[in-house]
Amino acid sequence: MSLHSDLDRLRVVLVSPRNPLNIGAAARAMSNFGFLHLRVVNPYELAFREARSAVGAAPLLARAEEFKTLGEAVADCTLVVGTTAVGLRQLQHPVRRLEQAASLIRKRLAASPVALLFGSEKRGLSNEDLSHCDWLLRIPTRDEHRSMNLGQAVAVCLYELARNPQAVPKPQKHSAATAADLERLTALLLDALRSSGYLKASPSGSQKRRSAAPSDEKIRRLVHRLHLSATDAELTIGIFRQIFWKLGSPQSPVP
Amino acid sequence: MSLHSDLDRLRVVLVSPRNPLNIGAAARAMSNFGFLHLRVVNPYELAFREARSAVGAAPLLARAEEFKTLGEAVADCTLVVGTTAVGLRQLQHPVRRLEQAASLIRKRLAASPVALLFGSEKRGLSNEDLSHCDWLLRIPTRDEHRSMNLGQAVAVCLYELARNPQAVPKPQKHSAATAADLERLTALLLDALRSSGYLKASPSGSQKRRSAAPSDEKIRRLVHRLHLSATDAELTIGIFRQIFWKLGSPQSPVP
Repeated sequence: MSLHSDLDRLRVVLVSPRNPLNIGAAARAMSNFGFLHLRVVNPYELAFREARSAVGAAPLLARAEEFKTLGEAVADCTLVVGTTAVGLRQLQHPVRRLEQAASLIRKRLAASPVALLFGSEKRGLSNEDLSHCDWLLRIPTRDEHRSMNLGQAVAVCLYELARNPQAVPKPQKHSAATAADLERLTALLLDALRSSGYLKASPSGSQKRRSAAPSDEKIRRLVHRLHLSATDAELTIGIFRQIFWKLGSPQSPVP
Repeated sequence: MSLHSDLDRLRVVLVSPRNPLNIGAAARAMSNFGFLHLRVVNPYELAFREARSAVGAAPLLARAEEFKTLGEAVADCTLVVGTTAVGLRQLQHPVRRLEQAASLIRKRLAASPVALLFGSEKRGLSNEDLSHCDWLLRIPTRDEHRSMNLGQAVAVCLYELARNPQAVPKPQKHSAATAADLERLTALLLDALRSSGYLKASPSGSQKRRSAAPSDEKIRRLVHRLHLSATDAELTIGIFRQIFWKLGSPQSPVP
């Protein structure tokens, strides 16, 4: 109910961070603004160890959760927001300015966990990472110098989320589907699309993985754009399982 | 008069900075948000040289002005604002939260130069430094962890100054699917659901129409709740036609 417990629902997710100073700076900004849940996906191991063993590393950093994949890191969240310095990806995702994005995130935080993703220092979020996102936010930097330092970008985003404690976030009317639900739905569709020949069946061997990825991402993005409620996600998954099972898709067994 | 030339009147003043990384980070945030005038007072010489010679140091840093005393550094400004993490100095100066402070600074920038002071990483601004200030600003950090990293504090202050409080958040405009598109999608799903036994097949005769209606409505409502764009509706219809056709639903022929 209080703002404090709302902020407690944010998961700051660093994807493939490489610099211990940046990891430490992100943790410090989180502590400054009262966001205490850090998740790290596939970090450069040495950097993560170094950041954690730094003198005075925030207890927050010591408690950071580590994940192998982004999918696992955002599974319990009903809204997944990526950060980007690039404007070009607007074609695939809505991109919102931080001011507006923060307002939407605060609203969702009143009811359920939200993931805020930051990509690696060098490359930002990959296309695969982006396919897990519902939408993107952009810090309003100058066109001449868009890309921010990671620790500073985290600080600015969290400041914007934390400021103006008088903003009364209204709870969502429907609890939104979790990323894990959406992932199940995506998998179900992909199976059916492969069975039906709409997508090339990918040999389960990993050498074809990369070429199958763009279609996977296209379908995942589509599913995320639907903004399903938890109930509708369940309903939809049930419907498709039934259809695909009855219609004979070999890869979507009814549980 | 324009916002751009207003921002051009801000002087960011680092007093006795000691860490080249922080000096570099401050300069980067300035460049990100379009504040191009950096002044450095009595820096730790080695740190300043190092920051300046760093590969890719912003041109901004190369053009930074160096002063021996704070008095000289703020001589041309009509408003001098210090930053502090401490609340105790309220007795000597008014302390304003960043949100309010930024609004006052922006007003003054419309007419004349303003200095925004950041103290050294270790000690912040000294009492002597504070005596040059008209008032102080405080970034609204948690009481449990007030003190921010220098580069991050600069980034947050400049973001608040640069952001457009009037920024009218416009949702992305995708043209929405027509009701006819949604109806096609609904019909497709209903066919598949009947074929798969999820719904009772309704004889095409009209006497059973009424009893089939509730399921039809349930599916139609679900489809409408998705708020599909025109493109996504087309994509989805294409995908389902392919799946249902290949998987052998007798009632959903490909057109």
